[in-house]
Amino acid sequence: MKNRQPIGILGATGMVGQRYIQLLENHPWFEITWLAASDRSSGKTYGEAAKWRLDTPLPERIARMTVSPAEPEGAPKVIFASVDAAIAREMEPKFAAAGCAVISNSSAFRMAPNVPLVIPEVNSDHLHLIEEQPWRKESGGYIVTNPNCSTIGLVMGLKPIEERFGIEQIFVTTMQAVSGAGYPGVASMDILDNVVPYIGSEEEKMESETLKLLGALDGYAVKPLTAGMTAHCNRVPVIDGHTECVSIKLGKKLGREVTREDILAAWAEFNPLGGLKLPFAPEPPVEWCALPDRPQPRLDRNRGKGMAVTVGRLRPCNLLDWKFVLLSHNTVRGAAGATILNAEMLASLGKLEPVAAAATQA
Amino acid sequence: MKNRQPIGILGATGMVGQRYIQLLENHPWFEITWLAASDRSSGKTYGEAAKWRLDTPLPERIARMTVSPAEPEGAPKVIFASVDAAIAREMEPKFAAAGCAVISNSSAFRMAPNVPLVIPEVNSDHLHLIEEQPWRKESGGYIVTNPNCSTIGLVMGLKPIEERFGIEQIFVTTMQAVSGAGYPGVASMDILDNVVPYIGSEEEKMESETLKLLGALDGYAVKPLTAGMTAHCNRVPVIDGHTECVSIKLGKKLGREVTREDILAAWAEFNPLGGLKLPFAPEPPVEWCALPDRPQPRLDRNRGKGMAVTVGRLRPCNLLDWKFVLLSHNTVRGAAGATILNAEMLASLGKLEPVAAAATQA
Amino acid sequence: MKNRQPIGILGATGMVGQRYIQLLENHPWFEITWLAASDRSSGKTYGEAAKWRLDTPLPERIARMTVSPAEPEGAPKVIFASVDAAIAREMEPKFAAAGCAVISNSSAFRMAPNVPLVIPEVNSDHLHLIEEQPWRKESGGYIVTNPNCSTIGLVMGLKPIEERFGIEQIFVTTMQAVSGAGYPGVASMDILDNVVPYIGSEEEKMESETLKLLGALDGYAVKPLTAGMTAHCNRVPVIDGHTECVSIKLGKKLGREVTREDILAAWAEFNPLGGLKLPFAPEPPVEWCALPDRPQPRLDRNRGKGMAVTVGRLRPCNLLDWKFVLLSHNTVRGAAGATILNAEMLASLGKLEPVAAAATQA
Amino acid sequence: MKNRQPIGILGATGMVGQRYIQLLENHPWFEITWLAASDRSSGKTYGEAAKWRLDTPLPERIARMTVSPAEPEGAPKVIFASVDAAIAREMEPKFAAAGCAVISNSSAFRMAPNVPLVIPEVNSDHLHLIEEQPWRKESGGYIVTNPNCSTIGLVMGLKPIEERFGIEQIFVTTMQAVSGAGYPGVASMDILDNVVPYIGSEEEKMESETLKLLGALDGYAVKPLTAGMTAHCNRVPVIDGHTECVSIKLGKKLGREVTREDILAAWAEFNPLGGLKLPFAPEPPVEWCALPDRPQPRLDRNRGKGMAVTVGRLRPCNLLDWKFVLLSHNTVRGAAGATILNAEMLASLGKLEPVAAAATQA
Repeated sequence: MKNRQPIGILGATGMVGQRYIQLLENHPWFEITWLAASDRSSGKTYGEAAKWRLDTPLPERIARMTVSPAEPEGAPKVIFASVDAAIAREMEPKFAAAGCAVISNSSAFRMAPNVPLVIPEVNSDHLHLIEEQPWRKESGGYIVTNPNCSTIGLVMGLKPIEERFGIEQIFVTTMQAVSGAGYPGVASMDILDNVVPYIGSEEEKMESETLKLLGALDGYAVKPLTAGMTAHCNRVPVIDGHTECVSIKLGKKLGREVTREDILAAWAEFNPLGGLKLPFAPEPPVEWCALPDRPQPRLDRNRGKGMAVTVGRLRPCNLLDWKFVLLSHNTVRGAAGATILNAEMLASLGKLEPVAAAATQA
Repeated sequence: MKNRQPIGILGATGMVGQRYIQLLENHPWFEITWLAASDRSSGKTYGEAAKWRLDTPLPERIARMTVSPAEPEGAPKVIFASVDAAIAREMEPKFAAAGCAVISNSSAFRMAPNVPLVIPEVNSDHLHLIEEQPWRKESGGYIVTNPNCSTIGLVMGLKPIEERFGIEQIFVTTMQAVSGAGYPGVASMDILDNVVPYIGSEEEKMESETLKLLGALDGYAVKPLTAGMTAHCNRVPVIDGHTECVSIKLGKKLGREVTREDILAAWAEFNPLGGLKLPFAPEPPVEWCALPDRPQPRLDRNRGKGMAVTVGRLRPCNLLDWKFVLLSHNTVRGAAGATILNAEMLASLGKLEPVAAAATQA
Repeated sequence: MKNRQPIGILGATGMVGQRYIQLLENHPWFEITWLAASDRSSGKTYGEAAKWRLDTPLPERIARMTVSPAEPEGAPKVIFASVDAAIAREMEPKFAAAGCAVISNSSAFRMAPNVPLVIPEVNSDHLHLIEEQPWRKESGGYIVTNPNCSTIGLVMGLKPIEERFGIEQIFVTTMQAVSGAGYPGVASMDILDNVVPYIGSEEEKMESETLKLLGALDGYAVKPLTAGMTAHCNRVPVIDGHTECVSIKLGKKLGREVTREDILAAWAEFNPLGGLKLPFAPEPPVEWCALPDRPQPRLDRNRGKGMAVTVGRLRPCNLLDWKFVLLSHNTVRGAAGATILNAEMLASLGKLEPVAAAATQA
Repeated sequence: MKNRQPIGILGATGMVGQRYIQLLENHPWFEITWLAASDRSSGKTYGEAAKWRLDTPLPERIARMTVSPAEPEGAPKVIFASVDAAIAREMEPKFAAAGCAVISNSSAFRMAPNVPLVIPEVNSDHLHLIEEQPWRKESGGYIVTNPNCSTIGLVMGLKPIEERFGIEQIFVTTMQAVSGAGYPGVASMDILDNVVPYIGSEEEKMESETLKLLGALDGYAVKPLTAGMTAHCNRVPVIDGHTECVSIKLGKKLGREVTREDILAAWAEFNPLGGLKLPFAPEPPVEWCALPDRPQPRLDRNRGKGMAVTVGRLRPCNLLDWKFVLLSHNTVRGAAGATILNAEMLASLGKLEPVAAAATQA
């Protein structure tokens, strides 16, 4: 665990910030050395500033660290960020301009043309976009983003299918966990014995991010997948794990009718990283559940240490071609783990290296 | 409350049976005089036989009634039935053959060609089918059914739209309450902090029943609506109230593009019963919720005393034409109240009259 | 419904404020004419200012009313208040000084020596204390309070026992609903699949308020009951209804050993209001549940329209004398309904003049 | 992992049976070689027979094992049992008579005078009782039991206090998870938005088992602790983890008043196993939570891999001396883990021969 890459966390006290801390505790490549949060928290120890909501203990070392102001001065050269869009819009460029690799879970820049929106198993080639960012040229810094928590699972499930058969239409209804709204987030009065059939901007995010992720890199631009897509997003009384009901119309890439076995094979054989071993990459990335009533969030969200996406109930759809159920852990695969995996991919591509150099000099 | 129609309940101890008892307590037209359940319960008082699970007290008069064997002997001429399909398949014809009007919530005969599957606000003309039933001709008895709990709300929301604009495609994802599975039904270990993305046969029922309900009576046969339809059915941790996410492709009946205002008007002006006042018919039958995050089961399931269907979030669908959210109370509008309203409609059509005569002679 | 007493609500947008509005909608004696809330809400219509969280519709008339600033100018002479203690401490005296009858659910003045803490069925004689309040003498105004939501149910269950047998020791563990914490109140992340064994200041409030309520009026002072008491307070994933496990050691008033039948009789015969009919007073005030696993919040909280207290599971206690379970609806009997019933009692005593006149004419 | 002790599971398909399988998957000393369940399951593979409800995958090796009839023929010599009391009463003696070490979670023989009821950290000396069992003398077989799930946590929290200060009175109210009732167990209709203030026989079990566990071995008999004790037991909507509110009156062992620091020290210094390392023994066995609102089941149940007991909120009690909150994982520490730890202790004492040999060699 020597010479691990120093990592800073922007938004360290939030739900995703807490997950970064939990998941990085014994990370072989990365080590948290800097924590920043709102002005209210700055100057306190993390133990005082954060209301720890996870079911593993807050690491002692982290509890004693002092929360820094959210400024690039003194920050390490690799920053994991998860802050509100409005704050991200202002801060993340500051850190990028200061030479930091900003690897972000925030939504602010996901759809910016020169910012990669990446899931390593899906479109790591899009990382190339960073070379077009103004900060990259000036200071070496850049911004890379991961998708929204409900998008990631969906796209992981769709990618193996899109690759082999093409996808023309996507219909998805989500049943999303409360942790996706942060803390305090959803009021208990709103969700006990209830469903809230609305999550602000979520449907729009899913629709646009999915097509960008499945799109093709064309020079220094991403051409979104040309598929029709509609999303219905709901909040349900579940702590962690977004469940999604999906119907899809396939394309003609295969040249013959796609069978159930074809789709099961596409998922089973999905091996996008080839021989590349990344600490947070689950094997397999997409797991098939054969039981008729699965996946279920309480039982399946932790597969692959929370990084695998689970699919089940594949059956014909009367309207489109096929329908199935998909599940992923929204604060692990869908947020903190997504950022970490992006960082691992960037490290394996040598894109954290000059950064690391800079960091070790500092 | 004099001269009320005597009513017998088949399946009196189940969740829907309990709702019949609760809802009929002060009914102006009907009075429970006979309760039947499984052999295990027969001979006990209802108070001993039933584990009452509703949040209003079990009426004293009912608690003291003795549970009868599930045989037509001694039963009144109007029977409300809610029993398992296998049991219904055997018993309901026996009661019909004995001259009873069997008004049923069971699924056994819903799709039988000569059995009306009816929601009074949607297709009361289908009741005409009873005249083709063999029992009707021999003994005066017949079977009338109401749809599955998840179908009723959907069809109530679709009918005003189908009438004015036509519907070509229907996409629905349900988030269904646990009471729909009866008692004990769904285990708490299966649903706390969880979603179960599967309900046996539910998707098939929704798909077939919806098209029959929206179909046209053609002589003594129902021609199902020729629309494409697909359903995804899920169980969520909600006590009562099924929430449904719906996308629809409209037909060309209007002769011009359908606007949001057109659809809102179709719902607002839906007045299928005209001047006919039935005690359990809600006014309006379909209620629009203007708030962006509604309807929600805990807050809206009791509208119209649990008999109204609530709609909200009407917005364009990228794949079909429009999408919206729909809610109905699954054990009131979706089960016990549905049977009661069917009986009220039959009474207003004089179809319980010879029955009543027979009953008062008995 | 003519000549109803005009009522103002302080804290109208909160959870208890919403309950005042819901419960007073068709009140025979009282009519809401004025609504006040924080500066943020002032000037908006109530429909805009409040996030209505109850399962009955917000009355149209109320939705259109404009929220007033929280100042006595323009307010009616009877104020129902439910605001945070710090705000109450400042505002309630202002309204009392301006001549208002401030009938409060706030905790600020409950333990003040000259402020009555009252449950009409328990200690309406304590209302006499208002005559010692400085405001009363100067402007006619005064402050009357009702207890904390967890205290009310407990004291209702204990009063019939204390009266007949005396009580020397009280042990109580509560399992309290989330609505008791207001809105947004308890975060869903804190309570789904969880119990929070702590509610700030709740144990202290229960211990002190219980003894004051069961205390004797001695001139213009209340002598608290001299009993030992300890409370353990917990939050559980329940929307409405506080469940309490109680053990008690009895006194010697009866002069012989107290039997189970004695206690059941004390509850059954509890009729503290005699012939006095108050619209919100439940009959009976304390209901016995004979079933072995009752009372339960979901099934029993609405007894007596949410104003009755339910008791069950009376059995010997190995440490003290008897133990039992008690339930009451925390936002009806435990908050908004408590204020309303206090106001009804004050009206019947002629303390809301000219209310009483109107009331007795009605 | 060679030469591990072969273990048979009686009641393998139940909730506790599933936990045995989950927890023993990589156990260093024990290996499951035989699974038995009801006649209905016998002959099927375990994968077919069991409805796996845990959030880790069913191990492949176990899924393929055939479920045996519940008869000693062919069973290994060490049996972990968790079956209904009525079945245990008949079966466990059969296995003991056949020479098996029956290490049981069933309640049937817990209070039998010659059967040890043991928590290794509390009273492993009671294991001596097996030498008085008739089976032991005849065939070498015996029965050892662990306590009820709600008792274990309580006694772990009390033991360090009893040891140093003595305990004269114990008051406990439990809020128990649904997994304690097995599967399907508690119906979702009974527990969503609800509390059930009753668990059959639970209060009696807690009261008797606690005093036996804290009692002293006197020759071949256990003299129960002479303390007064009363329990209130409740079911709450929590998946795993029993929360308990405890008040205690201390004895005079210390010879001076006991302070808060004394109690905290008793817990912190509790090290009952000394240097003995057992794979499932948590270190520390009792963990103190300093946060004011802890322990909480969702956040703290997995401490010490589910084997630690967590205590918090120590504060003076107005009636007895001290009160606090206690939490333990009911199906790990409170059931399956308890059996496993008892077996580990027996192995370390050489009572599972030839197990101990293998174990000490390892």
